Amino acid sequence: MIAELISVGTEILLGNIVNTNANYLARKCAELGITNYYQVSVGDNEERLTDVIKTALSRSQILIFTGGLGPTKDDLTKEVTAKVLNKKLIEDSHTKERIREYFTRKKGLEITENNWKQALIIEGSTVVDNHNGTAPGLIVKTEEEKIIILLPGPPNELHPMFEEAIFPYLNKLQPGVLYSEMVKICGIGESKAETMIQDLIAHQTNPTIAPYAKTGEVHLRITASASDMTEGKALVKPVVEELQKRFSTHIYTNKEEENLEDVVVNLLAKHKLTISTAESCTGGLLTGRLVNVAGASEVLGEGFITYSNEAKEKYLKVSHKTLEKYGAVSKETAAEMASGACENISGYDGYTVDVNDGDDNNTGRKTSLAITGIAGPGGGTEEKPVGTVYIGCMVNGHVRVKKYQFKGNRQKVREYSVINGLDLLRTSIIEEFE
Amino acid sequence: MIAELISVGTEILLGNIVNTNANYLARKCAELGITNYYQVSVGDNEERLTDVIKTALSRSQILIFTGGLGPTKDDLTKEVTAKVLNKKLIEDSHTKERIREYFTRKKGLEITENNWKQALIIEGSTVVDNHNGTAPGLIVKTEEEKIIILLPGPPNELHPMFEEAIFPYLNKLQPGVLYSEMVKICGIGESKAETMIQDLIAHQTNPTIAPYAKTGEVHLRITASASDMTEGKALVKPVVEELQKRFSTHIYTNKEEENLEDVVVNLLAKHKLTISTAESCTGGLLTGRLVNVAGASEVLGEGFITYSNEAKEKYLKVSHKTLEKYGAVSKETAAEMASGACENISGYDGYTVDVNDGDDNNTGRKTSLAITGIAGPGGGTEEKPVGTVYIGCMVNGHVRVKKYQFKGNRQKVREYSVINGLDLLRTSIIEEFE
Repeated sequence: MIAELISVGTEILLGNIVNTNANYLARKCAELGITNYYQVSVGDNEERLTDVIKTALSRSQILIFTGGLGPTKDDLTKEVTAKVLNKKLIEDSHTKERIREYFTRKKGLEITENNWKQALIIEGSTVVDNHNGTAPGLIVKTEEEKIIILLPGPPNELHPMFEEAIFPYLNKLQPGVLYSEMVKICGIGESKAETMIQDLIAHQTNPTIAPYAKTGEVHLRITASASDMTEGKALVKPVVEELQKRFSTHIYTNKEEENLEDVVVNLLAKHKLTISTAESCTGGLLTGRLVNVAGASEVLGEGFITYSNEAKEKYLKVSHKTLEKYGAVSKETAAEMASGACENISGYDGYTVDVNDGDDNNTGRKTSLAITGIAGPGGGTEEKPVGTVYIGCMVNGHVRVKKYQFKGNRQKVREYSVINGLDLLRTSIIEEFE
Repeated sequence: MIAELISVGTEILLGNIVNTNANYLARKCAELGITNYYQVSVGDNEERLTDVIKTALSRSQILIFTGGLGPTKDDLTKEVTAKVLNKKLIEDSHTKERIREYFTRKKGLEITENNWKQALIIEGSTVVDNHNGTAPGLIVKTEEEKIIILLPGPPNELHPMFEEAIFPYLNKLQPGVLYSEMVKICGIGESKAETMIQDLIAHQTNPTIAPYAKTGEVHLRITASASDMTEGKALVKPVVEELQKRFSTHIYTNKEEENLEDVVVNLLAKHKLTISTAESCTGGLLTGRLVNVAGASEVLGEGFITYSNEAKEKYLKVSHKTLEKYGAVSKETAAEMASGACENISGYDGYTVDVNDGDDNNTGRKTSLAITGIAGPGGGTEEKPVGTVYIGCMVNGHVRVKKYQFKGNRQKVREYSVINGLDLLRTSIIEEFE
């Protein structure tokens, strides 16, 4: 089946917002095995919207609209679609009631006459409730068996509505089912990762492997088209096993919703470890990433952002000699930053290396992660060019330091540093404790 | 003039990348006063691309393509465009030479036979040099006076090429000139800011005010259409003055390329101040934002990420009594965090309050910024709900603390905290020193 994605809104044409809805829906179609050949953005204008709908009906089976379902006169998607299909708009009492309830819940907001426009639906359409706003979704089937789906534009309304109602609806239209699993990889270059599976991708039919590159990471989605879930799982299993063989510990999760910092925080919590960070060139980005995880406060000791040599000496006990002899960006400094940060965690006396002490109350086992490097644009030398980064970590009393040479601008070097730092900590915890 | 934006690439249709190019070009068209009615994304497929080009030629005067100019067989934009226009592809010796030079500069990369495909241009087209890659841009004028512009897809190639060559080219096509100025506002709610200029926007014709909302900020672009630059400036001037009157110190810059952290770092440098940060709920995000500014190392003392009460006591000298009596999220704690961070800057003895000491070598005047709050999802109480944030700063020996009540999820609360923290520091420095 071929779906066309149509984003309606003058704010897209003026460049006021980035059209992330088209990207979201394109990914969902790919997951569903629905082909997407065209994405169109058009303004809230009757003539041009009519033109776009007619063209889409001539070349695609499914039309998925986002936007233009608001309460104002400018919002035309529903009205124009009804007109093109030669169908009436009728009031839906269920939706009217939901809108009334919505405004009762949101104290302080008053219903205006405009809002009742959102209770009008295209005759014969299926209403999809909106749990996060007032505009319902609509599914219309045309006489030519085309499917038109109208969805609200705000992502916080669109995403839950799609996951709950539209995804299952579209999935049922497909012959059989689509079953997919995720393999998330880090600590290995994007192009190297892709080379390592080139043979699998070249010969794939069912299941397929789709790689998605993120900064410093590669996500592989393995999707099988099958007659039922059991068959789907059976088809996907050997591919996932093959990927596990090839990427081994570079795979940090198989869970769709889990990211690298979640995995690290969970590993720390699982082994009752606390983490203290010492950042130079990343200046807080690493810790900010960890704090993104709800519950990070359980494992986070404290963070030191030590740009100057003085601060590295004062708070991390990096020796003056080391800084003088090897420089702030060096293996030796990274190692001392890591051990200094580890030993500095407040509230605990001394460093506990006794792992299996059987004491469930001992939540104070310390780890640390330290980053020092040259993010650019200035500061590079022949010997240590921009992108040279040393990352150190201390886990279970052992200090590990790795040297990295990243490419890209200041922002990229810092992002790569954070990802690779988290990965070094992750693999070190696994090596020490698992 | 009406421009249509056409993004070519299967990776967009698969949802592998977000189409930021369309957004970039839409903004640029808006700046140029060129109308954008349609944005289309299509894959690297001859039949469908032909269809899209023909439709676009039938309804728009300017077609701006991005993507599909790469060296592989998949890349078809140039080839299909030539075919639709019934024009030949010819080798451009200048571009061939540039490609050769590019590969010489990038040691380690080898030219493959494929790469010479990028030296082929549509006959009669104008070549636009690519300073960041091998695919040149092309401008083609059709017999029907339509303009087709082919641009590379990677943003780091597209943006500089557009700024340098395409923007001036399109600007010349317009009758008269467009002149615009920017007013960037923070420390005031988005909807309040828009209400404050509703009357101006309602009655505007020339110049126009276009508001762009960013988290915690509002950017206003004032654009005049005029016969020359002098007239343009004269038209924009009274509007900018009116905005200055209304928003006063909430305006942090009029420079297009300057953001809030740039302004703060520049202010610190201008007054020879150093900054030390103390972060709780923002966990490094604030400092990470400051470090984004190249040259931040000149003003950044150090950062403390103190999640636990112990760390607040140990490193920031927040008194145990204050934490016990008022809690970690309180006016009192924020104030002590700010003064503690300020007094803790390493490498300097004592706190210098003598502002006009005439000593140019005194680069050690200390300031600090401290954030403590409840980002959620947990941790909120009736008295201090999620989103309660106290921000303190110490500038010139004076501590200021402000209480904020932010709305939104964990991520939003933290972003608002950072923006409002930077703004508190900015306004405090201005009040103390300007």
